[in-house]
Amino acid sequence: MIKTALGIDIGGTNTEVGLVDKNGKCLQIQRFSTAADRPFVEFMAQLEKAIALITHNGEIKPFAAGVGAPGANSETGRLEDPENFSWGSVELAGIMQKKFGIPVKVINDAKAAALGEMKYGQALNLKNFVQITLGTGLGSSIIIDGKLVEGHDGLAGELGHIKVRESTRQCSCGKIGCLETYASANGLCRTVFELLSRNKTDSKLREYSYEQINSQMVFELAQNGDELAIEAFKYTGTVLGETLAGVISLLNPQAILFAGGLTSAGNYLFEPLIQSIEKNLLNMHKDTVDILISDQRINYAVSGAASLVFNTNGKHK
Amino acid sequence: MIKTALGIDIGGTNTEVGLVDKNGKCLQIQRFSTAADRPFVEFMAQLEKAIALITHNGEIKPFAAGVGAPGANSETGRLEDPENFSWGSVELAGIMQKKFGIPVKVINDAKAAALGEMKYGQALNLKNFVQITLGTGLGSSIIIDGKLVEGHDGLAGELGHIKVRESTRQCSCGKIGCLETYASANGLCRTVFELLSRNKTDSKLREYSYEQINSQMVFELAQNGDELAIEAFKYTGTVLGETLAGVISLLNPQAILFAGGLTSAGNYLFEPLIQSIEKNLLNMHKDTVDILISDQRINYAVSGAASLVFNTNGKHK
Repeated sequence: MIKTALGIDIGGTNTEVGLVDKNGKCLQIQRFSTAADRPFVEFMAQLEKAIALITHNGEIKPFAAGVGAPGANSETGRLEDPENFSWGSVELAGIMQKKFGIPVKVINDAKAAALGEMKYGQALNLKNFVQITLGTGLGSSIIIDGKLVEGHDGLAGELGHIKVRESTRQCSCGKIGCLETYASANGLCRTVFELLSRNKTDSKLREYSYEQINSQMVFELAQNGDELAIEAFKYTGTVLGETLAGVISLLNPQAILFAGGLTSAGNYLFEPLIQSIEKNLLNMHKDTVDILISDQRINYAVSGAASLVFNTNGKHK
Repeated sequence: MIKTALGIDIGGTNTEVGLVDKNGKCLQIQRFSTAADRPFVEFMAQLEKAIALITHNGEIKPFAAGVGAPGANSETGRLEDPENFSWGSVELAGIMQKKFGIPVKVINDAKAAALGEMKYGQALNLKNFVQITLGTGLGSSIIIDGKLVEGHDGLAGELGHIKVRESTRQCSCGKIGCLETYASANGLCRTVFELLSRNKTDSKLREYSYEQINSQMVFELAQNGDELAIEAFKYTGTVLGETLAGVISLLNPQAILFAGGLTSAGNYLFEPLIQSIEKNLLNMHKDTVDILISDQRINYAVSGAASLVFNTNGKHK
């Protein structure tokens, strides 16, 4: 029997559970709604069902599980009161170990994605890169010399909470003007509303409430030539590019790898983003960095999480 | 005879040449004016004299030399057209090797300082820290897991050229709004002039031209209670603190170590700086970082440069 592990990616919206082999290949996958606003026990019931399905009711026996989740602390195995979750702090590794009878390791979701990309994805063989996930929020990880940067207390990588604008948007973290309030699906929608308030441009977007719009709608309108939608992507790319120019000045990575739903916007986002990066770099840093986009069909956080429990020797193909 | 090496720190204003033992102790030191606006051959003549003096005309025989200098490329041994120098690009290691008949290694000056601090100074035993030199400009280095972060092309660490303000101050690098145009001796003087233009506050500083003022004068006036001078330090600390909060979010270092002339300003600078850092951090990052100030009497770039040529094993005391 093939040796397999569970790779689990707990996201704010959906959770994916994969059966992963030692080469990072995902043999089976199940997805369910995380329902982060519901009690944690309900999530555990859903997780149990999903695992039963992919293990054919226990016929397949994964030897361990790796879990990527927001607020995960690798040292303690706990989720530390993740933002936008109503679970509070949870002994995730301990609870899962008891329930499923296998060893469990947890890691921050952004780091799981970066590990997956480095071992099996777009960042294969890269030693110095920054991974950015543009989803509902903005997740990020830094890899230097082939290793995840953890920081002194395991708290490195919070690019989303760098202040990028004065006295502007409230962030869910309690601060003002964080990058995440601009460069994320949610940030894009906020930018739409800022532009609607500021400009007189005609736009289909004037017909929707704040509750109604989402980044997919803005993208579709941009494709139909809606100027305000195009402008919203441009502003998003510009603000993100300014910050990334700073990160490049600081760390001189060989690549920045983007993942997450917002990357579907393609050139509406990446053209202004790359222009803004180049504009804000020192001459010596220009053209030193590759802009990579993750394969949207594959959730590398699943295989990245599973890679935590496989021996990592010889894993770099 | 004690095994010694030359440790040389080439600064925009002065150059220091030290005779350094394997423990980083500086047995002799000579200082001369770099005269960066004069031809490189004149600098070499001065350097030759200084070396003759500390080696007692060749009686003492250092086995090698390590040099810290702006724009130094460790791979090629060249200075790459350093800013504010009229030398253009110079094959420094090769020229010195030929002239003095000993092996020569070069390194960026900010990195030499960080190496010195890590091996012999305030950062002894620290594995994750950021070193910032507030001199005429702003130099910086990053240490992660006990190693200098070089970046993919050896260009990491340019904190001074992160954009911190929109459409404001021209930087010598050609960009606008770089941190260095605010957080440096020169940036402080520019802030004084901005405040003089903006506020009506009485100040002795209204009596001096832009050519006449320097950071030392601003410090002395602050000590005498000059409100505008105090305000200039406050603004400098605030802008620097905002950027450092971003660096802490990204890298989660255990300490930030400040060196350079501007640190003499003490609490005029560090009180607003620390307040600004704390204000802009995520709660989880608060109180995670130590603020350290280098010993102003010792130029750690000299011993840091020398440490390049000593075998580094067992050098961490």
